[in-house]
Amino acid sequence: MKELINTTTFRVRFSEVDSLRIVWHGNYLKYFEDGRDAWEAQYGLNSLEVYEKYGLLAPLVKTNIEFKYPLRYNETGLIETTFINSPAAKVIFRYKIFNADRTQLKVTGETVQVFMDTENILQLNTPPFFEEWKRKMKLL
Amino acid sequence: MKELINTTTFRVRFSEVDSLRIVWHGNYLKYFEDGRDAWEAQYGLNSLEVYEKYGLLAPLVKTNIEFKYPLRYNETGLIETTFINSPAAKVIFRYKIFNADRTQLKVTGETVQVFMDTENILQLNTPPFFEEWKRKMKLL
Amino acid sequence: MKELINTTTFRVRFSEVDSLRIVWHGNYLKYFEDGRDAWEAQYGLNSLEVYEKYGLLAPLVKTNIEFKYPLRYNETGLIETTFINSPAAKVIFRYKIFNADRTQLKVTGETVQVFMDTENILQLNTPPFFEEWKRKMKLL
Amino acid sequence: MKELINTTTFRVRFSEVDSLRIVWHGNYLKYFEDGRDAWEAQYGLNSLEVYEKYGLLAPLVKTNIEFKYPLRYNETGLIETTFINSPAAKVIFRYKIFNADRTQLKVTGETVQVFMDTENILQLNTPPFFEEWKRKMKLL
Repeated sequence: MKELINTTTFRVRFSEVDSLRIVWHGNYLKYFEDGRDAWEAQYGLNSLEVYEKYGLLAPLVKTNIEFKYPLRYNETGLIETTFINSPAAKVIFRYKIFNADRTQLKVTGETVQVFMDTENILQLNTPPFFEEWKRKMKLL
Repeated sequence: MKELINTTTFRVRFSEVDSLRIVWHGNYLKYFEDGRDAWEAQYGLNSLEVYEKYGLLAPLVKTNIEFKYPLRYNETGLIETTFINSPAAKVIFRYKIFNADRTQLKVTGETVQVFMDTENILQLNTPPFFEEWKRKMKLL
Repeated sequence: MKELINTTTFRVRFSEVDSLRIVWHGNYLKYFEDGRDAWEAQYGLNSLEVYEKYGLLAPLVKTNIEFKYPLRYNETGLIETTFINSPAAKVIFRYKIFNADRTQLKVTGETVQVFMDTENILQLNTPPFFEEWKRKMKLL
Repeated sequence: MKELINTTTFRVRFSEVDSLRIVWHGNYLKYFEDGRDAWEAQYGLNSLEVYEKYGLLAPLVKTNIEFKYPLRYNETGLIETTFINSPAAKVIFRYKIFNADRTQLKVTGETVQVFMDTENILQLNTPPFFEEWKRKMKLL
């Protein structure tokens, strides 16, 4: 099966670093979001559009993160975002954050999103637009 | 004229401190917001209610901040928020942040907000609800 | 075995809420930190002191979070922080975030910290100060 | 006199946007910092190096910001950072944030930094390294 992977980079801001001179751990969720946004742009899924066209939101319900090595101020991080295809009505991504030249794996993680309509009702079945997208991507 | 002042406290989080082991300067705007919220609660102005009842938002259009002494991790800050009455259709607050026992003035600042309706039209005249509130507070 | 639990509260700031009008998921790690700080204060472990006296840091190496229901602007959250005793040289906490009256469990999570000296060497054995603290707490 | 200006861009993150679907005002100070970092890289002043070589820090003592139009999620902002030469021992920058195609001025601001040594003593005279840099830049 084809893997849908995006690679993008980000720069560590001074305001993202803590008093140990390393990125404060919660900020890696911002970099995961950078990865997800770049992935969406590459593979033609757009959460704003999904909301406007289909009235569906995709809130996070779960995340886990492993911090192996820290990033520091002004460093460039490289984030690799992989879509994990699932039969459930979920959107799952795995993330790997490396240093700029990709010689050291710094942080790994996963996020799980579900679909909810505008009345906050959880969608138990994969929404049609998502099935269609999966077919186009040869994931079904 | 009566001064409408609120005093409240906050604790500095680890994530709010930078690599110089002092509060990152931009975080003082969060403490100003703590002060504004506590002031609103004390004097019966509630921005959520104003939005729901009157369809008015009060975005910030201006701020200035002076950083005299830094706050550090786990310190308690005391913030004094003063409403500055103005004939213009503006909401102006001045802030003083002290250490917990009020022996050192750490940071001062000001914010200016205007009123906008839900179509982003600037309100040039003081909205009726605000005039009424001012009368109740003996500011008119 | 005795459970070491702390309960504390926090207020959701406007700046912590996203465009869906719910707390942005990454901010729950700040509330976990509030819980950890309050727990430390209650049970006499102080990370600043540990660093100054013993030259040891306790960086996070792992976290997982489950988001069940969202918190909103100006809501008070109640966080319950439980120390998970482990024979390994690790500091493990579990967190439960409720609404203020504790009728709804909003978010759960766990963090794992290790000990490192000032040269970033991982401590494979439980540091003596921590063993001593555990004995005092009747955890050994 | 020659103007030392840098222009760089940034993308607005989802986590930087508030419940009004516009960038939360305090986050513009992060974009100012992006501008300052890019300016430093262009003109050969590096605050980390200044600290390591000369033991000098440059904390912010003052800022003011005017919010004219908001930026939104996923928008690209363009920030123009201008060094304001001053005879005082200060580092002054002015910032202009535009939309990506520079057709709308969104936010303007200024920051003032001073020099402090590692014992937090304010430097009343322009430090020699800064005078030398100014000469190299033809500002003296």
